[in-house]
Amino acid sequence: MTSSTVHSASDQALEKSGEMDTPPGSERYMHKVSVPPKQNLLKEFTATVKETFFADDPLRPFKDQSKSRKLILGIQAIFPILEWSRSYSLKKFRGDLIAGLTIASLCIPQDIGYAKLANLAPQYGLYSSFVPPLIYACMGSSRDIAIGPVAVVSLLLGTLLQNEVDHTTNPTEYLRLAFTATFFAGITQATLGILRLGFLIDFLSHAAIVGFMGGAAITIALQQLKGFLGIKKFTKKTDIISVMHSVFGSAHHGWNWQTIVIGATFLSFLLVAKYIGKKNKKLFWVPAIAPLISVILSTFFVYITHAEKKGVEIVRHLEKGINPSSVDQIYFSGEYLGKGFKIGVVAGMIALTEATAIGRTFASMKDYTLDGNKEMIALGAMNVVGSMTSCYVATGSFSRSAVNYMAGCSTAVSNIVMSCVVFLTLEFITPLFKYTPNAILSAIIINAVLNLIDIQAAILIWKVDKFDFVACMGAFFGVVFSSVEMGLLIAVSISFAKILLQVTRPRTALLGKIPRTAVYRNIQQYPDASKVPGVLIVRVDSAIYFSNSNYVKERILRWLTDEEERKKAAEPTIHFLIVEMSPVTDIDTSGIHALEELYRSLQKRNVQLILANPGPVVIDKLHESKFETLIGEDKIFLTVADAVAACSPKKLVEEV
Amino acid sequence: MTSSTVHSASDQALEKSGEMDTPPGSERYMHKVSVPPKQNLLKEFTATVKETFFADDPLRPFKDQSKSRKLILGIQAIFPILEWSRSYSLKKFRGDLIAGLTIASLCIPQDIGYAKLANLAPQYGLYSSFVPPLIYACMGSSRDIAIGPVAVVSLLLGTLLQNEVDHTTNPTEYLRLAFTATFFAGITQATLGILRLGFLIDFLSHAAIVGFMGGAAITIALQQLKGFLGIKKFTKKTDIISVMHSVFGSAHHGWNWQTIVIGATFLSFLLVAKYIGKKNKKLFWVPAIAPLISVILSTFFVYITHAEKKGVEIVRHLEKGINPSSVDQIYFSGEYLGKGFKIGVVAGMIALTEATAIGRTFASMKDYTLDGNKEMIALGAMNVVGSMTSCYVATGSFSRSAVNYMAGCSTAVSNIVMSCVVFLTLEFITPLFKYTPNAILSAIIINAVLNLIDIQAAILIWKVDKFDFVACMGAFFGVVFSSVEMGLLIAVSISFAKILLQVTRPRTALLGKIPRTAVYRNIQQYPDASKVPGVLIVRVDSAIYFSNSNYVKERILRWLTDEEERKKAAEPTIHFLIVEMSPVTDIDTSGIHALEELYRSLQKRNVQLILANPGPVVIDKLHESKFETLIGEDKIFLTVADAVAACSPKKLVEEV
Repeated sequence: MTSSTVHSASDQALEKSGEMDTPPGSERYMHKVSVPPKQNLLKEFTATVKETFFADDPLRPFKDQSKSRKLILGIQAIFPILEWSRSYSLKKFRGDLIAGLTIASLCIPQDIGYAKLANLAPQYGLYSSFVPPLIYACMGSSRDIAIGPVAVVSLLLGTLLQNEVDHTTNPTEYLRLAFTATFFAGITQATLGILRLGFLIDFLSHAAIVGFMGGAAITIALQQLKGFLGIKKFTKKTDIISVMHSVFGSAHHGWNWQTIVIGATFLSFLLVAKYIGKKNKKLFWVPAIAPLISVILSTFFVYITHAEKKGVEIVRHLEKGINPSSVDQIYFSGEYLGKGFKIGVVAGMIALTEATAIGRTFASMKDYTLDGNKEMIALGAMNVVGSMTSCYVATGSFSRSAVNYMAGCSTAVSNIVMSCVVFLTLEFITPLFKYTPNAILSAIIINAVLNLIDIQAAILIWKVDKFDFVACMGAFFGVVFSSVEMGLLIAVSISFAKILLQVTRPRTALLGKIPRTAVYRNIQQYPDASKVPGVLIVRVDSAIYFSNSNYVKERILRWLTDEEERKKAAEPTIHFLIVEMSPVTDIDTSGIHALEELYRSLQKRNVQLILANPGPVVIDKLHESKFETLIGEDKIFLTVADAVAACSPKKLVEEV
Repeated sequence: MTSSTVHSASDQALEKSGEMDTPPGSERYMHKVSVPPKQNLLKEFTATVKETFFADDPLRPFKDQSKSRKLILGIQAIFPILEWSRSYSLKKFRGDLIAGLTIASLCIPQDIGYAKLANLAPQYGLYSSFVPPLIYACMGSSRDIAIGPVAVVSLLLGTLLQNEVDHTTNPTEYLRLAFTATFFAGITQATLGILRLGFLIDFLSHAAIVGFMGGAAITIALQQLKGFLGIKKFTKKTDIISVMHSVFGSAHHGWNWQTIVIGATFLSFLLVAKYIGKKNKKLFWVPAIAPLISVILSTFFVYITHAEKKGVEIVRHLEKGINPSSVDQIYFSGEYLGKGFKIGVVAGMIALTEATAIGRTFASMKDYTLDGNKEMIALGAMNVVGSMTSCYVATGSFSRSAVNYMAGCSTAVSNIVMSCVVFLTLEFITPLFKYTPNAILSAIIINAVLNLIDIQAAILIWKVDKFDFVACMGAFFGVVFSSVEMGLLIAVSISFAKILLQVTRPRTALLGKIPRTAVYRNIQQYPDASKVPGVLIVRVDSAIYFSNSNYVKERILRWLTDEEERKKAAEPTIHFLIVEMSPVTDIDTSGIHALEELYRSLQKRNVQLILANPGPVVIDKLHESKFETLIGEDKIFLTVADAVAACSPKKLVEEV
């Protein structure tokens, strides 16, 4: 088939077309596919960089401002407190005060427990709820996030550190490594923010996070069985099998019934409080202060009954006073530098994922925007400062942020209030925690982490995307049956595999004409769409790159083979293959190469290749690489309808 | 804005629409967006697996066959020789014989040189051109590929092995490690084929390969300066700076003028022969036999002049006889097992990339199909057998395959002929190579690798895709200025970065109506397309996944903000935002979440979200997740034109 015959066919089509969308008799108007105006190389490059790294257009407020104004705006950008504090009112403070007191009452017992998860002395949890919230309040832009140690990061940090140093035999080195990791976690977070690479954390999919969090919650709850049952010899592994072995191995001689009674009583109390808070949203403060009440009651109870002499484990010692400096404790050289760095990067990324998710959720609920990269710098700065003031990795806590929101916080002042309460606690009342039984802390942690198991979300994931569900379950079982790192690794790998699979095996679809329209759609979705005899219309649903160019070529040929086999003898043979290119947003040299091969294979089968609606980038590249001239410019149409109109009449002439 | 007002507006549109595509007065027909029929879970899963791993439908010929026939077909599938040998004719043999003799004359001198690149004794190059081609001829399905050692893989293997063991001090261990690496290279190739993971090699982009090959060619040519200039003390590094330092550091006392004269003379001869072959395609055999002629002439010359006594380095020793067994030399335990495995995996993948590219090129030129996975099994089997018969990694050679093709080969018999010639050489004439000067081998290699520098391809890449060009140059400079591994690492990293970037930052476009049609297209590509007043139409050009959901949401909002800022006061405010979903082939939970947030943000701005043409997978998931009900089923339209028709009249009613 020469190009001229097709051209004349398309001329005929112009005259004869009787499509629904054109009044019979009127000439069918065909608009040409435009090659976009040539872009300046530098301009194009700048646009790409801007879209990749400055997609949120952070410099918009700086446009058209005087120099001094730009400086003020710049300082305000780094310290948003300077901006919002100017419109701060007493009314807002009332909300923040109540919210701050509520989250303080919630965080104090949690901090002590979480520090134990990280294998650190209890005061380090409190330290981490004192300095970091203050820094965040100055630099962060989320109004609802509650800063402090969180369960999952504490567990992760504890596991990773324990792999390097044993905290029972080398407590000093362990502590120093913890500060080193915290320092590098902060550096990682700030660096990602400064380099505007915040989008990297988007590579951990929602489904993988749901699974990971659920698995971590189960693991943490299992770890608490040690304190809850009063077991003295307990495994250092975190997988469910080792833990269960430890628990039931010591069932006959290791459990302490007094501990269990205290733990179970207060766990029931906490769960009832949570239930009340769920039933009546106004009573949100009941579950929020229940932990502190449990601590006070149980401490008092142990103090008067001397239960600690009957084997009930208590906190025993809690350092009084605020954070000492830890600048000289951070390893800046030696073998622990590298280890601390690695642990810090992992812990920092996870902490970031959690804080970003919280920040976004509440920002979208109150409809303000958060600059993700700025947030990362704030979180990073807070952890760097934290690492120098005896804190370990702090981030936003899901449960406390929710309480903060419900208690009516309006700015980050609630974090400052919380920080002040923690300061007073550290200065004056830490000795009173001496008799707090560990079982209570365990009960509080179990109660807190149960919130992280989001069965509803898992069900939705199952409904919406089966592959996502595999990622979710992979992460979950990885954490529960192996270790936190393994779960994380599985989550990240499956997330990446999904992206790669999407890119390697793009969807393709056969199109048909929807009755009474000139619209061509996937015949799988629209079973009433009809195929055009003698013409095969295929849509490719992705950019054609080196990773999929071969697949795309072969898949299109397979559609043709399948169609020819399926076709009944009476139907006309296929002479035209229209490739609908609308979703093909880009093509590279391999892609063009594949199209050339496709064109040649089709020629050998006596089938004409026709392209419909290539986008600006694609038509530009087809033009540059001379592919446009190879298949003929008159084989490229603006719409599928135009393309069909150009080849159907020829079919009628030939076969009828 | 309530859903009912918009609905009534769309009812009005049905009556009032006066679009070009509908004759005035006639009712505008609107087809509904269908939710595709529910698929069986197992069926869906099977389809996905099939599309991912069996995209080429390898079992098609087995369909509807009897059991015994299936068995025969199965054996033929593994050994294609059984199939094509039955229709083999004398005519075909004539072509294969000539082609086989030609590539044999080309491969013998190349083999000796390439073995030196891999730091192995010359006979190992010949061994690798004897056994592997025989195995490939039985199992492979390419008709044009010429099997044997190749320059790039030899260099890569040599570099990687040298990093582990020094070949001058520990020649035995070096050799054993080489066989081990070859064994695992074969295992890797066969495993990829058996697990049908052949698509993994598609992740190395064409551009990266062009750059890598060019860089490797320069590196190999530089390495040849040792033999070419007769330098005795030469660096073991491969980067250009170290090599130049070696070359010019020994300029005054290390160069040997006799060597240079011999080398330069024959290099000129080879280049002239190549030029003749290029000018006149019929004389393709001139450059093909020139290397052998050079070897014969120079060997004879050295023999009669005793130039080896004047400092001209010669081959000196070349083992006589065919391949000895090397089964017991492969490390199956110990520290070298892991090292050999790692080197084997890398070398195997690169060898595979080269062979696959060659196979595909010639298959498309002669229009037969190659099963990539079956090819990998053949290549893998050949290297496994090779590793047991004293061969190192063999694969398809670009230059020799081209000669094979031009000499008129028609089946893999040409490889068998070549193999026989190599056998005769090994058995009878190896001692004659004793006086062959190394300078000739260097000249032959320099001449051969110059073909790998594809400047035309690099220019095309620059024209078509700037990012690809960065990948190409990254790989090139990585190899030239650092090392082969570094270049490879850069090539792979940039290839992956491109995929990830594509997924994280999909394109979005504003659409406008093309005059005299009902077609909406990118206004950047079609400057004559006009925006619809009061309506913003945005197209998202990618599946919406966790990796881009946030970006997509924020980008759409930014289009809206930009448009509102740009808009003149007289124009109506924007009340409708239509998202054209045609290219959105899939969505996951994060994506749906982002759409929900978008919907809420738009509601606060008093803008109605409308979706146009969601595909089968997307509409199904929107349905499952109740998003369809959230925005209202009447806000989802089949085409942008329908959606515009449904909201424009309302605008006219409101604002005019």
